[in-house]
Amino acid sequence: MNIQYILEIVGTFAFAISGALAVKDQKHQDWFGASFTAFISSIGGGTLRDVLLGSYPLVWISDITIIHAIMLGILATFIFYKFLLRLRKTLFLFDTFGIALFTLVGTEKALNLGVRPEIAVIMGVFTATMGGVIRDVMTNEIPIIYRKEVYATACFTGACVYLILDSIGIERNTAFITSAIVIIVIRILAVRYQWSVPRFFR
Amino acid sequence: MNIQYILEIVGTFAFAISGALAVKDQKHQDWFGASFTAFISSIGGGTLRDVLLGSYPLVWISDITIIHAIMLGILATFIFYKFLLRLRKTLFLFDTFGIALFTLVGTEKALNLGVRPEIAVIMGVFTATMGGVIRDVMTNEIPIIYRKEVYATACFTGACVYLILDSIGIERNTAFITSAIVIIVIRILAVRYQWSVPRFFR
Amino acid sequence: MNIQYILEIVGTFAFAISGALAVKDQKHQDWFGASFTAFISSIGGGTLRDVLLGSYPLVWISDITIIHAIMLGILATFIFYKFLLRLRKTLFLFDTFGIALFTLVGTEKALNLGVRPEIAVIMGVFTATMGGVIRDVMTNEIPIIYRKEVYATACFTGACVYLILDSIGIERNTAFITSAIVIIVIRILAVRYQWSVPRFFR
Repeated sequence: MNIQYILEIVGTFAFAISGALAVKDQKHQDWFGASFTAFISSIGGGTLRDVLLGSYPLVWISDITIIHAIMLGILATFIFYKFLLRLRKTLFLFDTFGIALFTLVGTEKALNLGVRPEIAVIMGVFTATMGGVIRDVMTNEIPIIYRKEVYATACFTGACVYLILDSIGIERNTAFITSAIVIIVIRILAVRYQWSVPRFFR
Repeated sequence: MNIQYILEIVGTFAFAISGALAVKDQKHQDWFGASFTAFISSIGGGTLRDVLLGSYPLVWISDITIIHAIMLGILATFIFYKFLLRLRKTLFLFDTFGIALFTLVGTEKALNLGVRPEIAVIMGVFTATMGGVIRDVMTNEIPIIYRKEVYATACFTGACVYLILDSIGIERNTAFITSAIVIIVIRILAVRYQWSVPRFFR
Repeated sequence: MNIQYILEIVGTFAFAISGALAVKDQKHQDWFGASFTAFISSIGGGTLRDVLLGSYPLVWISDITIIHAIMLGILATFIFYKFLLRLRKTLFLFDTFGIALFTLVGTEKALNLGVRPEIAVIMGVFTATMGGVIRDVMTNEIPIIYRKEVYATACFTGACVYLILDSIGIERNTAFITSAIVIIVIRILAVRYQWSVPRFFR
């Protein structure tokens, strides 16, 4: 059980909380809907990545710890949700931590499966963001990547930084941590100073 | 050709009818849209299950009878739709029969592929409900699992009952039929007495 | 590098342009959103086909030229979008060319993987239309196949024509080109004379 595995579980737990809280404003907020949304938010991105790469068995099917982390996240949201809602700032940091970690886990996994760097970047961004996209599509929201401009772009940048550090021979853990910090810093600055990606149509 | 296989085909046929009828209130209700919706509703859940489990070839790709059952369902809806709309009560029973069957078929298939019980329950619920969810997402409706509270939850309960019966050594067919009855009874009582799942946020 | 491969790349390029232009009317039209939409529109249909058929690795993962064609399409849209918007008629022809080609490429690939003709037709229609459907679902639009009635139906007809020509022993390239022309002509006549598929409910 290495550090990265523990971080993955923590990321899954954090995403489950943010998923369960996402149904707060929906009309029907029953136990099933909240749990289902938490589940989809947590495993959606990694599942899409593995299905696209044909990498079976899926992580959450072979490792039951993932399911347990999600169940714990749902339970924690149920018990502490008033506290969690007041903690919005911390939650934002949790989500930011989650996307940073999932981007690099996804990029690394794709590289290990032998795909080209361009594909690895796409897989990293998908791992971090597509769970939220699937959740938003299912709850009829505008997908997160169309709303928060510097969100997926932060993941994209971090994945590129990781590839560059890796290609110039930087040690794996150092590259991982540096790139994660890049994503977290970009995302925090973006929220703080309301950065947005340049408009496509002038 | 055993009883379960025949029930699966009947379930597919019933889901195709309910899918084709689902476009009734849409602005565009042409032949293609109705057929496409019927097709997605019927095969969506089982397809998602098999893609997640990496179980190839997909059932409807290897067994053309599934496609023929769907085509028959579409044709039946076209010819008898006025009659079918008056039969709403029976249709509801058809759908209930369909989700009961698909839940247990999905749970069993997942178990046979060697996954853990928790995963098998998820696969059972997905098999029964995700066809309807994909249909609703595509037609911009709130997904069925967010609307009808005791719907997926009935499937979830039935799948759990099946696992318990199976684990205490009850014979497979008995366990299957008992669990199907549990789902059907819960669903009928839920509709009749307007049961709903407890709210997640108090 | 044969003619069909070149046509596929051109089709991908054309779909990327039509995808990037699709976000024109969305509130947020940043670089990331436009690029993401272009990417999904181009590869969505073929990806769904290959995932359903279990045909790995996916084309765009093993052949980086696909990704480069999409990037070129995004860049071309950025630079020439005012010109492209004025060229709507030509664009419509580009999209029509794209769906014709993708239908037949998808049908052929499915046949080569040994599926039955009914499945091959479904795979052809999916290849051509599901990228647009996924794009529309993600941007909260009514999916293209529910709006433009004679759209998927043109693909469906073309795929059937291909199967018939193939089954009576017509040479592969001749069958391919004839069927493509059938799709293009149906689609052009449908837009020009506002053809629509017969209503399902009378």
